[in-house]
Amino acid sequence: MFEQHRDTLAQALSAITGRGYWSAYPESPSPRVYGEGAAERGKEAFEGHLGKPYPLDQPGTGARVGAERSPYGLDLGVSYPEASPEGLVAAAKAAMPAWRDAGPEARALVCLEILHRVNQRSFELANAVQHTTGQAFVMAFQAGGPHAQDRALEAVAYGFATMTAGNAHARWEKPGKGDPLVMEKKFVVVPRGVALVIGCNTFPTWNAYPGLFASLVTGNPVIVKPHPGAILPLAITVSIAREVLAEAGFDPDLVTLAAEEGTGLATTLATHPDVRIVDFTGSTEYGDWLERNAPQALVHTEKAGVNTIVVDSTDAYRGMLGNIAFSLSLYSGQMCTAPQNILLPADGIDTDQGHKSVEEVAADLAGAVGRLLGDDARAVELTGAIVNSAVLGRVEAAASLGEVVLESRAIKHPAFPDATVRTPMIVKVDAAREDVYGHEHFGPISFLVPTASTDDSLEVLRRTISRRGALTASVYSTSEQVLAKAERAALEAGVNLSCNLTGGVFVNQSAAFSDYHGTGANPAATASLTDPGYVAGRFHIVQSRRHA
Amino acid sequence: MFEQHRDTLAQALSAITGRGYWSAYPESPSPRVYGEGAAERGKEAFEGHLGKPYPLDQPGTGARVGAERSPYGLDLGVSYPEASPEGLVAAAKAAMPAWRDAGPEARALVCLEILHRVNQRSFELANAVQHTTGQAFVMAFQAGGPHAQDRALEAVAYGFATMTAGNAHARWEKPGKGDPLVMEKKFVVVPRGVALVIGCNTFPTWNAYPGLFASLVTGNPVIVKPHPGAILPLAITVSIAREVLAEAGFDPDLVTLAAEEGTGLATTLATHPDVRIVDFTGSTEYGDWLERNAPQALVHTEKAGVNTIVVDSTDAYRGMLGNIAFSLSLYSGQMCTAPQNILLPADGIDTDQGHKSVEEVAADLAGAVGRLLGDDARAVELTGAIVNSAVLGRVEAAASLGEVVLESRAIKHPAFPDATVRTPMIVKVDAAREDVYGHEHFGPISFLVPTASTDDSLEVLRRTISRRGALTASVYSTSEQVLAKAERAALEAGVNLSCNLTGGVFVNQSAAFSDYHGTGANPAATASLTDPGYVAGRFHIVQSRRHA
Repeated sequence: MFEQHRDTLAQALSAITGRGYWSAYPESPSPRVYGEGAAERGKEAFEGHLGKPYPLDQPGTGARVGAERSPYGLDLGVSYPEASPEGLVAAAKAAMPAWRDAGPEARALVCLEILHRVNQRSFELANAVQHTTGQAFVMAFQAGGPHAQDRALEAVAYGFATMTAGNAHARWEKPGKGDPLVMEKKFVVVPRGVALVIGCNTFPTWNAYPGLFASLVTGNPVIVKPHPGAILPLAITVSIAREVLAEAGFDPDLVTLAAEEGTGLATTLATHPDVRIVDFTGSTEYGDWLERNAPQALVHTEKAGVNTIVVDSTDAYRGMLGNIAFSLSLYSGQMCTAPQNILLPADGIDTDQGHKSVEEVAADLAGAVGRLLGDDARAVELTGAIVNSAVLGRVEAAASLGEVVLESRAIKHPAFPDATVRTPMIVKVDAAREDVYGHEHFGPISFLVPTASTDDSLEVLRRTISRRGALTASVYSTSEQVLAKAERAALEAGVNLSCNLTGGVFVNQSAAFSDYHGTGANPAATASLTDPGYVAGRFHIVQSRRHA
Repeated sequence: MFEQHRDTLAQALSAITGRGYWSAYPESPSPRVYGEGAAERGKEAFEGHLGKPYPLDQPGTGARVGAERSPYGLDLGVSYPEASPEGLVAAAKAAMPAWRDAGPEARALVCLEILHRVNQRSFELANAVQHTTGQAFVMAFQAGGPHAQDRALEAVAYGFATMTAGNAHARWEKPGKGDPLVMEKKFVVVPRGVALVIGCNTFPTWNAYPGLFASLVTGNPVIVKPHPGAILPLAITVSIAREVLAEAGFDPDLVTLAAEEGTGLATTLATHPDVRIVDFTGSTEYGDWLERNAPQALVHTEKAGVNTIVVDSTDAYRGMLGNIAFSLSLYSGQMCTAPQNILLPADGIDTDQGHKSVEEVAADLAGAVGRLLGDDARAVELTGAIVNSAVLGRVEAAASLGEVVLESRAIKHPAFPDATVRTPMIVKVDAAREDVYGHEHFGPISFLVPTASTDDSLEVLRRTISRRGALTASVYSTSEQVLAKAERAALEAGVNLSCNLTGGVFVNQSAAFSDYHGTGANPAATASLTDPGYVAGRFHIVQSRRHA
């Protein structure tokens, strides 16, 4: 079944080895690619969900939950079946044996069919992502659609490659004095057990898909627990998975939705003795709690961090400013990969436009952001809306943390008058104030921190990231020696580094099948999307042997 | 350096994929293989250690520890430098960067040179293993020497394969409207951190080598904490590793020994914030404690279990009895893989020698053990000696647990009058007494348990192993249908199964490069020796990217 996806699987397997670029799902939302009328149909499908009970035929209490409100100002009014944790776990366990027995290839092909149908509904999902996260539409399409699908496919490929790293059958011959001993051996992949994926508010699909598909392809049933503010994108995904599983003759309860309005369902499920895998994206506080309080489970977390840019020198001053300005502005910095701390020597930097003092860099960076977001109608397509009041509160508190280099500006969204839109705020802070910049201020808040020297900047990077983690780091320098030192500091802090980004690649972005997202080597995440450590442990191998 | 081992590495990499049989280290202790006089030189080398301070130049307190006593009745009188935990961890951390920077291939070749030299000292190690574990000499040679070395090589191969699963460099081209975006990307393996290996009393090398070499090849320094009763084999191993590391220009403190006399050093080290990997073999109680109380570390444990044989029917009654008798007798059942529970239908079994009642099977099995161990001088070469007083206490307590089918017999060792030697005891126990056979009685103790039917036996297997774990299971049946049911029960209990062993393969034995030891899918172990889950998580990948 779904044998048409064999080529895709083969290509994905080759891509994870090569780590060049390969993408199965085109990121352009153009009608030429997705078909005439696809955008309109997707929008209609999204609107068709609003104000209605979302249809999902899975074990539940009979009650309904859901109170999503779009950061663009509308109540979605969608309700979901309230799940009973025991009911979901029991249904998941009952569904597992047949899924295990299907074997790695059948499971991989079913996963690829799910992704194929998810891809076909990218416009519907983009609208759902936009109106739960506040992302601008094009970003919601790309990051919530094809980029998330590519990360999912990558997880399927890693899962398949790891499950099939050894032969499933072997003939063992041990030479002896007389006839050799000959045995037939069989090796079967068995799942670890029921998996739980805890989604986040800002990237409901991108951050949930890797865990969902890594667990599913390795034989585990998956309970998807979305953030109360971003249920719809995962409800649609769960529906599609259930539809494909049922068509393929499997129990659809292999993938279920655990919607809630913030009543602690994640804790109930994560500590259930039969829940054996937990994937979580969210706060450091809750991630740390999960790591210590669900000992029965393999727990993978992605948490907060202090993403850092070290500026030493540049031969492309304008390019650097534009690149950083874009990184700060994209989705108002509400990305786990957005830079927060910009470190530069207190005596300024050498550039192709002469030496620039800290004050000049600060003013020029503020100017670059200002130019980028000067036109309100275009600005909102980059910043999107503020996802929730906690982010807004942090923006408002940030001015008191140091010397404001760039004020955050409220923008009136031309299409959504109730949307809360804020441009980035940049605050200059003394190097001594590690109590301020040494932890994450999630949202459009960044700190310009003058240091004693670039060596000192690298030491701050190493120290703060080792302590509090980071998903990204970036360096600007014209000196190969400094770049080498930065690479060493990044290695030691265990953070992925981008060097001299001045064009169309941004530190916030990572390409599936080439870039790793997170490393597992610093406190921001326990594993990487995706490396072998992310999939191993989700399954085991059980063997049987007999004389030939 | 050590490029002569490239072929060995390539062969090992191919062997882990094929899972046929391949062994780098010949298991025959014959002079033809190991060289004329090797046995004598090994014995002399071992004797040369006795009664002396073991030379080991590593950070320590200056005091000396060690009180090993051979189960064959002699005090070894070897003392080891007392380690300061802080000193060992600090030295390990200081040694790490250069080892990391050497990269996967250089590390793998150094590990192979260590193993090559360990192999050359197999006779010395065999004597050390014999006189710390109580194993008979040939077993101490095979299991403590070449088999342990093969398992180590397997761990090196898995580590290398997993580290190099993706390319170390990639050129990324993203097609765009104009020129493509082109970036150069570099991927570097970084170690997780200081590793701790906690050895056991019965298989000091076999059970410690996989963790030691898996951590070392992936870039981590390793502190080896032997069981207080079995230090010497690991002290020799640590010395060899340090010698090779120093010759190759690395800091020998990458591998250190943490000898103790049972003063809680394992707990101090395992909970040290800078100890990031723990490999443990031993009791369920302490293993469970480690899994919950060292949250900073990746913890792999191998613990107790209830290894089970299900007897349904056989067409080789004598072969079956002989095979089981051997499995019970080998090293007096002091193997984590030795069978404990023998389940058979209360109304007996069909065999090639007619129907046999439970009483007949009991008597015939007792007879088979009796014949196997009838001659004292030959018996001790199979049973070895009892490792410690806890095992002896359990043997003595076992008679009260049910109806004694075979008494344990004390044997006078012809060469070592002070050795404690005991033959296996078999006790018949009601199926209702799961309180007795439902947990491990480590030592020469097995239970014959009549059940309602083979289906019932399989249900007992599934239930007891799911609860308490097992490293091995075995089934005897002439029915393909029953074998298929047994395979399913084993899959569900997550235990490796052997079917109809009647010849020269025993359920206690697993061949590196073909059989997995443990699965990770039941409570007896968190991972398998060796599968990808055993090596992943010991390292991370950190990337750096820049425009081409």
